[in-house]
Amino acid sequence: MENLENKKNIAQKWFKELRDSICDGFLSIENDASDNYQHWDNLNSTFERKDWKRANTQHDGGGGTISLMQGKVFEKVGVNISTVFGEFSDEFKESIPGAEQDPRFWASGISVVAHPRSPFVPISHMNTLLIVTTKQWFGGGGDLTPIFPIDRDTEDFHLAFKSTCDKYNTDYYPQYKEWCDKYFFLPHRNEMRGVGGIFFDSLNSGDWNNDFTYTQDVGKTFLDVYSRIIRRNMNKQWAIKDQEAQSIKRGRYVEFNLIHDRGTKFGLMTGGNTEAILMSLPPSASWK
Amino acid sequence: MENLENKKNIAQKWFKELRDSICDGFLSIENDASDNYQHWDNLNSTFERKDWKRANTQHDGGGGTISLMQGKVFEKVGVNISTVFGEFSDEFKESIPGAEQDPRFWASGISVVAHPRSPFVPISHMNTLLIVTTKQWFGGGGDLTPIFPIDRDTEDFHLAFKSTCDKYNTDYYPQYKEWCDKYFFLPHRNEMRGVGGIFFDSLNSGDWNNDFTYTQDVGKTFLDVYSRIIRRNMNKQWAIKDQEAQSIKRGRYVEFNLIHDRGTKFGLMTGGNTEAILMSLPPSASWK
Repeated sequence: MENLENKKNIAQKWFKELRDSICDGFLSIENDASDNYQHWDNLNSTFERKDWKRANTQHDGGGGTISLMQGKVFEKVGVNISTVFGEFSDEFKESIPGAEQDPRFWASGISVVAHPRSPFVPISHMNTLLIVTTKQWFGGGGDLTPIFPIDRDTEDFHLAFKSTCDKYNTDYYPQYKEWCDKYFFLPHRNEMRGVGGIFFDSLNSGDWNNDFTYTQDVGKTFLDVYSRIIRRNMNKQWAIKDQEAQSIKRGRYVEFNLIHDRGTKFGLMTGGNTEAILMSLPPSASWK
Repeated sequence: MENLENKKNIAQKWFKELRDSICDGFLSIENDASDNYQHWDNLNSTFERKDWKRANTQHDGGGGTISLMQGKVFEKVGVNISTVFGEFSDEFKESIPGAEQDPRFWASGISVVAHPRSPFVPISHMNTLLIVTTKQWFGGGGDLTPIFPIDRDTEDFHLAFKSTCDKYNTDYYPQYKEWCDKYFFLPHRNEMRGVGGIFFDSLNSGDWNNDFTYTQDVGKTFLDVYSRIIRRNMNKQWAIKDQEAQSIKRGRYVEFNLIHDRGTKFGLMTGGNTEAILMSLPPSASWK
């Protein structure tokens, strides 16, 4: 049990470190914005932090920290960390591995969604988490949603995650990529949300340290490859018609997150923090 | 059976007539736009019509017509009519009155959502329908979503529906108003979608003609009272900050429709026409 507490602490500490690395990385990008962005020079390119607490009862507790920047390159980017614990309701416990008999859970993780101002910079999302019931596992993933897909960006994004996955298990990448493609799909539009990435869940290989290092690597890989993709596209000039296409794509992003996203649904239905959950929504969107 | 076919035809014909009245009424408002709207003088203030068909198989069929105007006073307004028939899937039939034994259904109705350009004109929605399984009933309602609620508008809207309801049964209004307040509520925001109106379902009093006349009256009442509310507010000057508040409220509208609205969920999950179903979404929305 002491060993498990130790693992929880290590994981929780990592999500905080990764949050700091991502915020620092994004801030350095923000500082490299060209004159294209001078219209937004009055904006404070800083992450505003806001702590929230879960309603604490005898059995439930925890909370998290929202880091939100509304800047120049990043029109809106949220980096959330949270650590929560409690008991699943009867409604949910049947569908959660290891919670059927004992409904108690503990979960800690990080979630990032970036909505760049330029229509030529893809939207991107990454999250990783550790869940503990009577079982325990890692989950997460990262995916890219360009408005105007560019082969080089798509290939780099996929290659980065493939390289990371292959260091651990060559079965991971094909499986996690397929999972991602299946997950980020809008059936009512018959279209993909974006160009994919990876998505994994229930990762417990039996070697905790290896699984944890892999999960850490997914976070680092995201920061590295997404930063490169942002930097190479962010200073291109764009036009009103490009912004209109971006706005429609952002509408699709809203549709996915509110209709299909499991984390969003689960969070809202279990009384999670609405502000943190809906941080993923774009600054604006439109529908024809 | 002939009698039932006759009822279906009469109802279907009415929804078409009501569609024409609403489109005509809204066009006459559009023509009375003041110079406030001269920036949008280039827009065609006409309803574009688009027919759609349901995938026709041996047992399923029907379709509908979308009427969409993107005008001056009405930044976006959709008036949809549809008549569809088929068989409920096993998943749904248990929850539909009269479909448990025989899954066949027929449904015809009209649905209107108006997103005015001015932040001082409330968003509004109205729908009415006739559903036939082995049972048959009318349903529908209308509700008002102001960005900046004005007592006179709210009172007029409620009073209009109360007068209409009371002509048929004095139990209707209190019951349908409460139903509306309960339905158009966003639990994750702990806020109402707007200021309410009426919502009814499963209306079958035993007197079909009376129920049908009531349902017709609900549609006419909506057109009358909403037109008055639009006209008295549409030519007020507004500022950027008012538009920003409108954009946030539209975001809440999107949240309600995609997360909670039964018709939207049901439609998307049963392979309905996506364009017609999502016609209710605002032209634009924003999230902080």
